[in-house]
Formats: sequence, structure tokens, C-alpha cells
Amino acid sequence: MQRLCIHTITTKPWDLETALEKYRNAGVTGITVWQDAAQAVGINRAGSLLQESGLEIVAYCRGGFFPHLEEAGRMKAIEENKKMLDEAAAIEAPMLVLVCGSAPGQSLETSRDQIKKGIESLLPRAEENKVALAIEPLHPMYADTRSAINSLSMANDFAEHFNSPWVGVAVDVYHIWWEPGLKEQIVRCGSNQNLLAFHICDWKMPTADMLLDRGIMGEGCIPIQKISQWVDEAGFAGHREVEIFSQKYWEGDQDEYLNKIITAYKNHYPKEIIA
Amino acid sequence: MQRLCIHTITTKPWDLETALEKYRNAGVTGITVWQDAAQAVGINRAGSLLQESGLEIVAYCRGGFFPHLEEAGRMKAIEENKKMLDEAAAIEAPMLVLVCGSAPGQSLETSRDQIKKGIESLLPRAEENKVALAIEPLHPMYADTRSAINSLSMANDFAEHFNSPWVGVAVDVYHIWWEPGLKEQIVRCGSNQNLLAFHICDWKMPTADMLLDRGIMGEGCIPIQKISQWVDEAGFAGHREVEIFSQKYWEGDQDEYLNKIITAYKNHYPKEIIA
Repeated sequence: MQRLCIHTITTKPWDLETALEKYRNAGVTGITVWQDAAQAVGINRAGSLLQESGLEIVAYCRGGFFPHLEEAGRMKAIEENKKMLDEAAAIEAPMLVLVCGSAPGQSLETSRDQIKKGIESLLPRAEENKVALAIEPLHPMYADTRSAINSLSMANDFAEHFNSPWVGVAVDVYHIWWEPGLKEQIVRCGSNQNLLAFHICDWKMPTADMLLDRGIMGEGCIPIQKISQWVDEAGFAGHREVEIFSQKYWEGDQDEYLNKIITAYKNHYPKEIIA
Repeated sequence: MQRLCIHTITTKPWDLETALEKYRNAGVTGITVWQDAAQAVGINRAGSLLQESGLEIVAYCRGGFFPHLEEAGRMKAIEENKKMLDEAAAIEAPMLVLVCGSAPGQSLETSRDQIKKGIESLLPRAEENKVALAIEPLHPMYADTRSAINSLSMANDFAEHFNSPWVGVAVDVYHIWWEPGLKEQIVRCGSNQNLLAFHICDWKMPTADMLLDRGIMGEGCIPIQKISQWVDEAGFAGHREVEIFSQKYWEGDQDEYLNKIITAYKNHYPKEIIA
């Protein structure tokens, strides 16, 4: 399971120390840290725990939310993102994932312009900290308040606009599995050196809640193996990050849940197990 | 309100006779009939009620659901759609709206092929009945089971593939408001004579239910006026159809709800009122 990473939010009830111990004992090799988990113990302590764990720190989540109707809101967002870049550097995370934001009182075009300006403002700090900014396109059902970047095609446009080693894309199967021309967009992302991260989970049928009802791989209809193959063929060799928001699983036994994740991962990536 | 049409499903608790009376008294000039409303009184009786009402019959809803894992399911869907084309002709509806379907056990590409074949099989009957087939692209959040056609761009591709006066597109703001390049796709749809229908409602923030929590125009974040302007500029002069699925409104007083719809419509289209 040398490519299996889990996001701390996936097992939200566990604090960072518990998550690290459980993941490591289960053979998980990577961890993506959400800000709430790091801040709960303090950034410095989080950094020490992570270094001691031996797990690879894959990413820090999640900055962004650049668009706001008022200038003051946009400035505040940029400051908050700079702070997150510093926190990412402090825990030695190589990238900060961006949920770019969307402000419903203005057009999506305006929100996209503000996202562009936001990322631009962060670039010097990203470079200084050696922390890449990973633009995560979000499913169109989040276009109202979470992100005005709703396809891999558009995320590619953005990353190519910056054409910087410090700006790339985080591909999450949940958000883009439906996208026409997906394979071509993944190839494009990889060949431009923009494919920085790969997130997996599943789309349940039905989905009871738009935010907190993601499924474990195999519980839904996303062709995860096919997309994973395209991602690998596009040159990506990093961790496959399990990012699941699930009220149902959060309310259950976390050890059982972690077991299910690992079993599902092994089912989806048998070759990695054989190797 | 010479361009205001309401879908019977919008005021689901009312039977067809009640809906016709209430709509007419409120000055609504068009109606789109859902199969459940028509079948509840019988197709012939529905036809008589509609003719007597003086309202324009804008469309019949909804056919489609072509993709199935098994051949038998696909054949059954085509037969059902032929029956709906006959029902549409019987009530003198000029078009049948298609929610094209998606089968989660197969790829979206396969579902799209099956949709193409399904529409192809219906074309002779559509022409014979003089009932157009309106492909409605559905929001990507319905890609799992309701439609593998998830953007106006793709619906345009399909309509242009058939290049027939009996195949076009139904544009619903709820499904495509987030789409990059939306204006260009609307222009393209109109200039190819494919813009057959225009549906309005709003995207609530937050949306509590993926299917049954649509808002009245003004309750959400969709730039309805801007999209309507694009649609008109693309040459569309037909009815604006209010299609709202809302558990909340269905549970309330339907007269008050209809009043709210009409007030919202007047607010959004003041020029029509002045004219």
C-alpha cells in the first residue's frame, strides 16, 4: 500500500495522534492533514507528530475561498491563505489544496477573476515556502458557494495560465467523474506537469447529502480504476488520497471504517499489493 | 404574462383540472403536462380539458431513460417513449421532453451511445406524430442514474448529430447555470434551430435535497435574467416554463405558492408586463 494516503478529515473523530497511529498500524503510507486536525494540537506539535510517524505528508487542506463581494473579504482570504502556506511549510507538506470559492451575489466569471488574482497574490509565498498550490476543481453542485472552478478542463486552463511549478491541479474522482472528455483532460494535466494530487472516494446512489454522504471506493458508480489508470498513464506516481466526508461513517466505529477503506483500496489496486 | 408557462409537477398536489383553472385565473398562458397528471384523468379527458382551457400546451414530460444494462430494458424504454409520443400527440403537445437516462453499471460513454440509439429509434414516430424530441441536459449531479448528458454543450452535440426538425434541446437554468461558455452554447443552440424549450427555477443555498428542493426564481443564485436574455437573443420566443420540484412548497398552500411564482415572474420579466 505504498501509494495509499488518507485525509485526516476521512476519519474526523480521531485526533491527529490517533489517526497517525491507526494509519501506520494499518500499513497506510501517506497522510494529508486538514487544518482543524493540525490546529487542535498546535502546528509545531503537529509537525513533530508527523515527522515521528514516518508517514509521508502528502498535502495540507484546504486553502482558497478567494471570491467575496467586498474587497476586505478578498484581502482577508489572501492573508488566511498565506498563513496556511506557512503552516504547510511548518509541517513539511509539499502542497496546499485550494477549494477556490464562489460568491453567490456575483457572476461566476467575476468569482473566477478573483480566484485568479488570489492565486497570483499567493505565488511568491508559495515559492518562498516551497509549497505548491493545487487547484481542486469542484463538482458543479458546489458552484454556488464553494468553487467557481467546476471542471478539470477549467482547472487546467487556470494552471496553464500560471505556468508555474508552484501551481497545479488536484484531481478528485468525486468532482470530475462525469466530465465529458475526462481522459483527454487528465492527459493534458499530466503532460503540462500540473497533475499534483489524486483523490479517491465514490458517488453513492442515491446520495443523501450533497456534502457529507461520500462513499468508500466500490460503494458507488465512479469508474475509479479506469480513472486511476488514466492518471497513472498521465505520469502520476504519487499517493492515492482517500478523502471521504461521511456523516454515516463518522458516527460509526472508526476502526471498522478504516478496515473497510483498506479492503476497498486493495480490491481496487490489486497490482500494487502484488508488487 | 404571455410567455409564462407552468409545469403541472410544479403544483403537484393539484390535479389537472384544478391546475388549469388556477393557472388560467392567474393569467398564466401556457402549461406543460406531466404524464402522471394526464394519466390520472385519462389521456382523452386530459386532451379535452386542455383544449377547453385555452392555455397553450407547451410540452409533455417526460420521456427518455434509454440506457439499461440489458437489451430488454432498452427495448422497453423505446416502447414506453413511443407511447408517450402518442400521448403527446393526443393532447396536442408539440414536444416531448427527454430526461435521457444513465445506467450506473456501465460507462457514461455506453449510456450515451444507448441514448443516441434510443432517439434514433423514436425519430420516425416523432415525425409521424409531429411531436419534437427535446433533449434536456441534466446537472452533473444526476449523472449517476438520470442522465449521461450533463451539459448544454453535449446536448448541442447530440441535436446537431441528428440534424432534424424533430430533435432539439430543452434548456433548464437549474441544470446548466454553472457551465463554462454558457452564452456561446446558448447562441449555438439557437442558431442551429435547436432551442426548443426554456425552463426556469432557482438554485437554493443551501440545497437541502438534490431532487426536491428547487427554489422559485429569486430564491437562489442563478442569474436567471441574464440567461433569459441570452436565450431570447438566440432567437427563442416561446414560453418560459416554471418547473419546480419542491417538497417544501408541495406541503404548503398551493394558491400562495402560485402567487409567489407569479410575483417572482413579474419581478424577473418586467418588460413583458409593460408590453
